[in-house]
Amino acid sequence: MMHPFDLRLDVLAQAYRNGCCTPREVIATLHERAQALNPAFNTFIYLLTAEELEPYLAALEGASPQTLPLYGVPFAIKDNIDLAGIETTAACPAFAYRAEQDATIVGQLIALGAIPLGKTNLDQFATGLNGTRSPWGACRNSVNADYPSGGSSAGSSLAVALGLASFALGTDTAGSGRVPASLNNLVGLKATKGLISTAGVVPACRTLDCVTFFTTTAAEASQLLALTAVKDSRDDYSRANPAWNGAQAFGVPEKDFRFGVPDRLEFLGCAESEALYHSAKNRLIALGGIPVTIDFSPFLAAATLLYDGPWVAERYHLAGKLIEQQPEAVLPVIRDVLRKAPGTDAVAAFDAQYKLQHFKTLCDGIMADLDCVLTPTYPRPVTLAELAEDLVKRNSELGVYTNFMNLLDYAAVAVPAGVMANGLPSGVTLFGRAFTDQYLLSLAGALQRHQKLTLPGNRQIQAASPVTTASHDRLSVVVCGAHLDGLALNHQLRQRGATLRETTRSAPHYRLYALADGKRPGMVRDREQGAAIAVEVWELPHTEVGSFLAGIPAPLGLGKVELEDGRWLTGFICEAYGLQGAQDITAFGGWRAWLAHQR
Amino acid sequence: MMHPFDLRLDVLAQAYRNGCCTPREVIATLHERAQALNPAFNTFIYLLTAEELEPYLAALEGASPQTLPLYGVPFAIKDNIDLAGIETTAACPAFAYRAEQDATIVGQLIALGAIPLGKTNLDQFATGLNGTRSPWGACRNSVNADYPSGGSSAGSSLAVALGLASFALGTDTAGSGRVPASLNNLVGLKATKGLISTAGVVPACRTLDCVTFFTTTAAEASQLLALTAVKDSRDDYSRANPAWNGAQAFGVPEKDFRFGVPDRLEFLGCAESEALYHSAKNRLIALGGIPVTIDFSPFLAAATLLYDGPWVAERYHLAGKLIEQQPEAVLPVIRDVLRKAPGTDAVAAFDAQYKLQHFKTLCDGIMADLDCVLTPTYPRPVTLAELAEDLVKRNSELGVYTNFMNLLDYAAVAVPAGVMANGLPSGVTLFGRAFTDQYLLSLAGALQRHQKLTLPGNRQIQAASPVTTASHDRLSVVVCGAHLDGLALNHQLRQRGATLRETTRSAPHYRLYALADGKRPGMVRDREQGAAIAVEVWELPHTEVGSFLAGIPAPLGLGKVELEDGRWLTGFICEAYGLQGAQDITAFGGWRAWLAHQR
Repeated sequence: MMHPFDLRLDVLAQAYRNGCCTPREVIATLHERAQALNPAFNTFIYLLTAEELEPYLAALEGASPQTLPLYGVPFAIKDNIDLAGIETTAACPAFAYRAEQDATIVGQLIALGAIPLGKTNLDQFATGLNGTRSPWGACRNSVNADYPSGGSSAGSSLAVALGLASFALGTDTAGSGRVPASLNNLVGLKATKGLISTAGVVPACRTLDCVTFFTTTAAEASQLLALTAVKDSRDDYSRANPAWNGAQAFGVPEKDFRFGVPDRLEFLGCAESEALYHSAKNRLIALGGIPVTIDFSPFLAAATLLYDGPWVAERYHLAGKLIEQQPEAVLPVIRDVLRKAPGTDAVAAFDAQYKLQHFKTLCDGIMADLDCVLTPTYPRPVTLAELAEDLVKRNSELGVYTNFMNLLDYAAVAVPAGVMANGLPSGVTLFGRAFTDQYLLSLAGALQRHQKLTLPGNRQIQAASPVTTASHDRLSVVVCGAHLDGLALNHQLRQRGATLRETTRSAPHYRLYALADGKRPGMVRDREQGAAIAVEVWELPHTEVGSFLAGIPAPLGLGKVELEDGRWLTGFICEAYGLQGAQDITAFGGWRAWLAHQR
Repeated sequence: MMHPFDLRLDVLAQAYRNGCCTPREVIATLHERAQALNPAFNTFIYLLTAEELEPYLAALEGASPQTLPLYGVPFAIKDNIDLAGIETTAACPAFAYRAEQDATIVGQLIALGAIPLGKTNLDQFATGLNGTRSPWGACRNSVNADYPSGGSSAGSSLAVALGLASFALGTDTAGSGRVPASLNNLVGLKATKGLISTAGVVPACRTLDCVTFFTTTAAEASQLLALTAVKDSRDDYSRANPAWNGAQAFGVPEKDFRFGVPDRLEFLGCAESEALYHSAKNRLIALGGIPVTIDFSPFLAAATLLYDGPWVAERYHLAGKLIEQQPEAVLPVIRDVLRKAPGTDAVAAFDAQYKLQHFKTLCDGIMADLDCVLTPTYPRPVTLAELAEDLVKRNSELGVYTNFMNLLDYAAVAVPAGVMANGLPSGVTLFGRAFTDQYLLSLAGALQRHQKLTLPGNRQIQAASPVTTASHDRLSVVVCGAHLDGLALNHQLRQRGATLRETTRSAPHYRLYALADGKRPGMVRDREQGAAIAVEVWELPHTEVGSFLAGIPAPLGLGKVELEDGRWLTGFICEAYGLQGAQDITAFGGWRAWLAHQR
């Protein structure tokens, strides 16, 4: 399949800068191509007309990739997200309305220079994971016609996979932004709830809904998240993105990261899916990861609450009235899903929330010890024929590894993991604590670079590794004195949930002094006459760094310390005036050795 | 009324240390006194027998106030909190059960040396704010017999106010730990949800319930919170207490704190309550506070959800079955409250949660700009006669300023505010963001010390001011270079939600250098030849300190800087090696002046 353009963000920006093409040319070509492909794939419910596209193109005049980060970037919008002036259908004609204003995320992207091509097909009311539940026709897979695209963000995944858009917006309540990503060789980012505004999005479950990005690479998803994750006063569920989860956190993951592997993995008999998962696991190990087997039962238990519990009432909140007044306007399979809602009372609703809180407590306990978890995105792919036979059962099988995520408030990234013998792409999912999105994307990016998987359009990944080190919701702190493991002030680290990551030495450029109080050392950089000093690297939750810092008396503080392998990490430093009356103990090589000598 | 002992924690510990009395003597006297007072006040539903008390006394043998922080401290337990081996009634005989194990908080206190005296009376199922809804009789006020004790933690407030216990445990879902505190001249701490375990507590609304402390002084509540706020694996709603909210945060509040004052205050015609509120406000101003008028409507709107919304279903979760099977076993007024629950469906339950989230967004926006809010604890006190006339209406009037707190996830402290002409105590409430408990207690303590109010038992407050500065969920950071307001790196502070608190100068003990890169200064302490340097103090949320610190390149770091008024705050420091090639610009007095000179 020929791709007219390589639409990756950096490639396209480069093409624009070089004058190889203009946004007007790109959009015209894509529009034509989208129309040509739509009968086969049912990607778009609505494609903007030339007249409707014109204002977006006109707005770019005088701008460039230098002035607008998403200058001329074509994107597609799932048709449960508002684009001003265009109908939003949620794949239900009787529900459709003309949007008066852009959804916040759509407006953000347009303001950054991106151009909306059209509204994409979906499982009605975003209820489904397969992509066939739409009056606009089933969405077939981008690679293998025997399979569905996956859903509910079906058309959005196709728009990117078929080379019709650089990226696409989806939504995700139970896996709708991840399942179709993995079935179409894409990255699907379901960021932490509340980071991307859901104002102007048709709700599925308002307490769980997320807007997602489909991209070719994790690096692009990182870029889009960094550009758009701002607190939105239009969305009551919007949350501020802590600065540690910003763009600069996207980088190369440090070695010895710990990733969870479920103790029981279900592939429903699909040996190929199993093999591809294990090869992804081995690639993470090759990247320096340490696999940790975890009890997966509380995650699976939480997942069962989504459709058997009161959250179905959230879906009914939107579509209930329509079902009551015009039942035939809603697809029978969707009516069946929502039918349980009116029978659930508030007592049962709270009871389910208590159960969820219990599972979350168990899951959070497991996650506390890990940097992320690796799962399949789904146990096995299902064919269109299998779906036709038992739609409900096959659909719910697709959600085994995705249904719990939003309920438990975790961030997740679906990342390509290879191709089956029949050509069908497969994927895995990395998930982690809320606000570790950029860390997960860093791992996903490293996986993509490592496996050199073919991208949609038969392109190869050529991106260079980022120059920074990936960071997440914990900060590494180099300690050299009373905070060392087991020493007098070590409890200040432990009571803040810190863990020892590494016992190592500084670069050979430091002198160590016993301060005049006799209780603390001062480590002072001296490039000419220094030595390597024994240190430990502790990992401290970001929320606890401030109070730890506040408790450090002068002349000590936290700055940057060079380790023997050349890394510069946050660590203890000492002001020069504090050396008055201090004793040079560099020759001992470390504070422990000095203490032993003292005794 | 004679008090046999001054039971404040520090006074009692001193008495034990001095050998003035033993726990055995104290407990015996209190037991006798409690029995004598019970017919008049109905404080206790159950008093432990001498035999039941014996193991607790025996366990103290060989211990002392030096080895056990709560050695021999008598406390009372609201009878919806489990004490092993004793019946828990929730003031409903048909509901009663014998507790097999201690509630977590009870076990913690006993392990610290405290001695449980008995189980106290309450509004049935903790549903009520007046203290009269109990088969064990109404609880009259500790000072004025025309008034109720307030509830639902009625007997617990009386136990402390009548000098029968050093402190008492209450619970609080809608104000039950604050209303009776203010009516009885006590401090009532409703800490941030999840800080004090609710395992072993009969739920009212499980998602909202808090265990509270009744104490004579804010300093005691601070001490108890610091001893017991730990994450409990028995309680799914338990939350870790960040270190910035630890005991060391209890101190003297810094000047220029901003406290919210509702734009519309309702005293229901009680001029005395109004006057006492305004005098508390003036005392806060005298302590250095800046009153800020705030829109109070979203707080009041949130409050209406509690009894008109689905949270009643949480109460029904516990008592519903009993009401269905034995309606006569539950007080008619409680039945009336719970009657709405079965009619509420899950759709309405979620709808109310969306509304709450909307109000919370508005309220959080208001709170972001404040250090705390000052409200009355209730609009006006009500007499027993008024309650008899219209129990439901008078009861709900008591909750105007308390009902929203747990729904909105704020921390709150009720603190005595004076005495009405008829002798009845009055109180005000300080509330703030989650995890600002110790800061609120610091303010409450300062108010208590400032007003020199008579404590229960006609004692005077004599406690000295704490030596530390109160801190809360934000950290003060002294900046002297590119982070100054409007300069090149200032955005690193602003994007993290930091606010400028103060423009001032350092102590005259610093030299300022322009580093070789020309872009940053290094401020270096030099006690002999230093000068005062122009600096700014910014306040940064604790959650953002780590990423701010991580972004500071060598040779700079964050340590401690002395200001001209003698305070040492966290601020920028510079390692000595970084001065290579630097220019001494001390004579300019600051980075701004140097930049101006450069131009």
